[in-house]
Amino acid sequence: MIDCSASDAVADRYAGWLAAGIHVITPNKHALAGPWARREAITAAQRAGGTRLRHEATVGAGLPVIQTLRDLLDTGDELIAVEGILSGTLAWLFNRYDGSQPFSALVREARALGYTEPDPREDLSGMDVARKLVILAREAGIALSLEDVRVEGLVPPALQGMDREAFLAALDQLDAPMAQRLQQARAANKVLRYVARLGHDGGASVSLLPLPADHAFAHLRLTDNIVQFTTRRYRDNPLIVQGPGAGPEVTAAGVFSDLLRLAASLGARL
Amino acid sequence: MIDCSASDAVADRYAGWLAAGIHVITPNKHALAGPWARREAITAAQRAGGTRLRHEATVGAGLPVIQTLRDLLDTGDELIAVEGILSGTLAWLFNRYDGSQPFSALVREARALGYTEPDPREDLSGMDVARKLVILAREAGIALSLEDVRVEGLVPPALQGMDREAFLAALDQLDAPMAQRLQQARAANKVLRYVARLGHDGGASVSLLPLPADHAFAHLRLTDNIVQFTTRRYRDNPLIVQGPGAGPEVTAAGVFSDLLRLAASLGARL
Repeated sequence: MIDCSASDAVADRYAGWLAAGIHVITPNKHALAGPWARREAITAAQRAGGTRLRHEATVGAGLPVIQTLRDLLDTGDELIAVEGILSGTLAWLFNRYDGSQPFSALVREARALGYTEPDPREDLSGMDVARKLVILAREAGIALSLEDVRVEGLVPPALQGMDREAFLAALDQLDAPMAQRLQQARAANKVLRYVARLGHDGGASVSLLPLPADHAFAHLRLTDNIVQFTTRRYRDNPLIVQGPGAGPEVTAAGVFSDLLRLAASLGARL
Repeated sequence: MIDCSASDAVADRYAGWLAAGIHVITPNKHALAGPWARREAITAAQRAGGTRLRHEATVGAGLPVIQTLRDLLDTGDELIAVEGILSGTLAWLFNRYDGSQPFSALVREARALGYTEPDPREDLSGMDVARKLVILAREAGIALSLEDVRVEGLVPPALQGMDREAFLAALDQLDAPMAQRLQQARAANKVLRYVARLGHDGGASVSLLPLPADHAFAHLRLTDNIVQFTTRRYRDNPLIVQGPGAGPEVTAAGVFSDLLRLAASLGARL
């Protein structure tokens, strides 16, 4: 079964399918980052059914993120930390945001380019990034749930409840606080980036951080994602995967490579 | 069979083993970058024997380089170019070389730290990098051989024939020409990096290049390798894998992940 929906209702069927001998492949983040009890049921069903759940495209689309983490752990490495920029939308916004135009103008431009969801709050809330961090943590065997992630959303409380059109009309309320953040960062010779972090202790956060200008995350191209694995083997210099992490074509490629790997594990000759 | 030698003689046995039903895993660059006729015999033997030859650790040790290229191609992507810094030794030398000390002093320091081969000419010749480029090209179905790669070695002809001790004593003959290269690069606001390049036309080169200071290759950490795949899907922004690309532990991890993947393809439950 290949679930290309973003539906929680479909994800509720996974355990049943897996227990019945049906393998599942999906780019559905809600399925993997949903309630921990469902995740446990899925794991038990995989064992019972001798089946696999593959979900490379849930993080970074076609980038080899989940598989790289799997390979590190399967070969006996130990995860110390994962850090990354996991939203192409937020990457683009903060790569572009240099004070020459207000933050709200960039949000409007990103929306016009189709880089944000129709309601940009879905990107600015940080929840999509938090979901990806939960997926990485669980892949590493950490029982993390969305409630456990410290999420710094970029939408002020006053703008959260209103309907979409009202929010878009009120967008310039983002500008003054963001300009202040930028000024503070610049005064310390830093740049702003929206970063996801998972420590080996399971501590997880998603927040806007000032980073030194020579940090690996400061030199991304436009909407690139980046994921940095620090492990026992890659302790001094982390292992880094970087590139475009969204879009229909690369997402389809992630799903397809899962399918080929599943087929290979069932004896297919590729 | 896991061949952890660097021997050509062992590689000559691969085709026989593969035809006889024995899978082969190796980090042996000589085996994969050797004569094209041997490579063709290996491919035919794999078909005849229904066997696999895996060699992730031949490029970048444990970094997911070969597998990433395989996944791109297997899912229908087309390679436009591969570029990279494929030698941790040369990465370290040019990350450090800023004119504050002569190039020969850095070569001596790298040798003392165990970063170079006992005879640093093996690193400085560029042949090790050229071998890795041949391996990547062949993985992408291009019939490239070592003779086809334009290799800019860093050892002047006068220093090539002598024995090791004489070479080490004459090391400072590298300094003046290298200082001139650095000066030229700096005058153009560039940095020097030793880069491997493969074009979609099969054109392949390994050379010392002046690169803009904001190039992805200009910000590597110490001995990091980096590989950048430009493909039809990753055309505007390439897919990048980066990290330490040498050392016993990460090389063993590359071999081990090949073994696990082979086992999975034979039906093992991981």
